[in-house]
Amino acid sequence: MTKVAVFGAGSWGTAFATVLANAGNQVSVWARREDVCDAINARHENAEYLPGIELPDAITATHDPAAAADGAEAVVLAVPSQSLRENLADWAGVLPNAVPLVSLMKGVELGTTQRMSEVIAELTGAGPERIAVVSGPNLAREIAEGQPAASVVACADEGTAARLQKLCHSPTFRPYTNNDVVGCELGGACKNVIALAVGMAVGLGFGDNARASVITRGLAEIARLGTALGADEHTFSGLAGLGDLVATCSSPLSRNRTFGEKLGQGMTVADIAAGTRQVAEGVKSCASISELAHRHDVEMPIAEHVTKVVAGEMTPKDMLFSLVSRSAKSERWG
Amino acid sequence: MTKVAVFGAGSWGTAFATVLANAGNQVSVWARREDVCDAINARHENAEYLPGIELPDAITATHDPAAAADGAEAVVLAVPSQSLRENLADWAGVLPNAVPLVSLMKGVELGTTQRMSEVIAELTGAGPERIAVVSGPNLAREIAEGQPAASVVACADEGTAARLQKLCHSPTFRPYTNNDVVGCELGGACKNVIALAVGMAVGLGFGDNARASVITRGLAEIARLGTALGADEHTFSGLAGLGDLVATCSSPLSRNRTFGEKLGQGMTVADIAAGTRQVAEGVKSCASISELAHRHDVEMPIAEHVTKVVAGEMTPKDMLFSLVSRSAKSERWG
Repeated sequence: MTKVAVFGAGSWGTAFATVLANAGNQVSVWARREDVCDAINARHENAEYLPGIELPDAITATHDPAAAADGAEAVVLAVPSQSLRENLADWAGVLPNAVPLVSLMKGVELGTTQRMSEVIAELTGAGPERIAVVSGPNLAREIAEGQPAASVVACADEGTAARLQKLCHSPTFRPYTNNDVVGCELGGACKNVIALAVGMAVGLGFGDNARASVITRGLAEIARLGTALGADEHTFSGLAGLGDLVATCSSPLSRNRTFGEKLGQGMTVADIAAGTRQVAEGVKSCASISELAHRHDVEMPIAEHVTKVVAGEMTPKDMLFSLVSRSAKSERWG
Repeated sequence: MTKVAVFGAGSWGTAFATVLANAGNQVSVWARREDVCDAINARHENAEYLPGIELPDAITATHDPAAAADGAEAVVLAVPSQSLRENLADWAGVLPNAVPLVSLMKGVELGTTQRMSEVIAELTGAGPERIAVVSGPNLAREIAEGQPAASVVACADEGTAARLQKLCHSPTFRPYTNNDVVGCELGGACKNVIALAVGMAVGLGFGDNARASVITRGLAEIARLGTALGADEHTFSGLAGLGDLVATCSSPLSRNRTFGEKLGQGMTVADIAAGTRQVAEGVKSCASISELAHRHDVEMPIAEHVTKVVAGEMTPKDMLFSLVSRSAKSERWG
C-alpha cells in the first residue's frame, strides 16, 4: 500500500487526507499539536477542524515529522501559508529527497510576495518537476463528508501530475491535470481576497446582482495578475480559477467569506480574529497580493480596497461604493 | 423628457422600466393584459410580477401597442422569447422605424434556433446598427428594489450602444457598452439552462463544490458555442457571461434555478409548470440551444443532459452522475 504524508491537520489537510485514504493510500498526518494527533489516532476524529466527521482507519497522526515522512511516496503540505517557511526549515533533513511535494496552501508570503511553490523550491531545493499544487472548488467540510468534487493537480511535469492524479482519485474526488502551477496557485490565493469583498457585500445587505459583479470583476483582476506572472489565462476560467472562486464566494462554509461578512456588519478585524480559531487566509494574503500587483504594474482594485479595509484605513461601505462608482465606459473594467 | 417604450410587463420588463424611469425618462409600458395595465396606472404596482414594489410615477401602462410606441426614442422588447415572433407580427406598422430596438429577452427560438436579435431583424427589417441587447447579473426583483447592479448594453454600433447606455444609467444601475451582441445574447440564453442544472444539483442535495463545478463547466460550454457562432470569448468572462450565470445560479430568486431545484426534488416538469405563473426560460430554450450546438458541431453536455431531463428521458440524478463520471484526463473538459 502506498504511503502518503500530509503535513498539517487543519480542515483542508485533514479533508485531503480522507481523499487520499479513500483513494486507497495509507496516510500519515503530521499535526503540530499532540492532542490533535491523539484524537485522530484514538477516536478517528479531528474535533477541532472537522468535528463530527469519522476519519478513515487508513489515517494515522503523529507529532514527529520524521515518522510522518518516513517511506512516504508523496508529501502533501497543508500548513498556514505564513508559517510554511519556518516549518520547512524545521523539517530540513526530514522530507524525502525524491518524492513529489504537493502544496494545498492558498496564500502569498508576506514580505517576499512568494507563492507557496516558490517557498518550497527555495527551502527544499526541489525542482519544478516534483513540486505540485492541488486547487479547485474544494470546501473542506464537503469533501470530508464525501460529497462529489473536482479539482486540479498542477505540475510543470506531466508525469508527476499524472501520478498524483492517480494517487488522489477517489470515488468522490475527481482530479484533472494541468501544467500551469502559477495560475492554479494564484487563483487559489487571490480568491480568498475576493471572497472577503463578497462577504462584505453580503454583510452590508447587497444582493446577488452586486455579488456576482464583484465575483466577475474579481476573476478579471486575478487573471490580469496571473497573466502578468506568466500563467495561462484559461486556467482562470477553469476549476482552480472560476470554480474555486465561485465555491468560496457562495458558501457560508468559507472562512474568508464569513470573515468579510462580519467586517460588512461592522466588526473590526481584531474582534473577528479574537472570536475565530481558524485563520482567514485572505486577511493575511491581501497585503502581499496587492504588493505583488504593484510590483508587476497590474491594477487590482478589489484586492487593494480589501487591503485598506483590513488595515483599518477604509470602511467596507466606502470600499464597495468606491468600487461601484469607478468610472468606466466599456466593459473592459480598469 | 425622453420617452421610452417597454413592450412586456413581466418582472424584468417592469424592473427595467423602473431603471429607465429612475434614469429620467418617461416610460410607456405595453402589457398584454388590461388588468395589469390598470393596476400599474391606478396603483403604481405590478402585483403579479413585482408585488410590493412601488413603481415610479414616470411609468404608465397601456394595452394599445400604438399608444405605447408613439413618440418613443427607443423600444425595449421584453416578452417571452417564444412569443416574440408572433408579437412582432402583431405590432407590424406600430414600431417606429428609426429608433433602437432593445432586447431584454434571454432565449433561443424553438424550430429556427434564432437568437432574439435575429428574430427582431427578420420581422422588423431593422439593421444591426439599431438592434441592441441588455444583459448582465440583473435579477429583476433586486433591480426593482433599487439595489446596485451593473449590466452590459451590446450593439454592433458604438454610437447606439452609447446612447442607450446613457438612457438607462440610473443612480443604481450601471450599464457598460460592448459590441458583441451574439456573445451577450448567448450568455443570457444559455445561463438559464445551466441554472436548471445547478438547481437540480441543489435539489438533489449536492454542495457548493459540485455546484461551482457545474457553473465552471457550464460557462466553458457556453463559451464554446459562442465562439463557434462568432462571439468574442472575453464576453463570457464578463458581466453578461460569468456575471449573469453566477447571479442566476446563486439566487433563490431565479426562476430557472428554482425550477431545477424542484426537478431535483423529484417533481415533473408538468407538476412544476402547473404550480408556477412565470415561465422558466431554460425549460423552453434548452432544446433549441442543444439543437444550435448540434448544428455547429459544438459539445454542450450539460445543455444536452438538461434537455433530456426536461423531455422526461432522464432523471436529474442520472444526469448529474453522468456529467460527473465523464472521463477526462486534463482540465480541458470535453
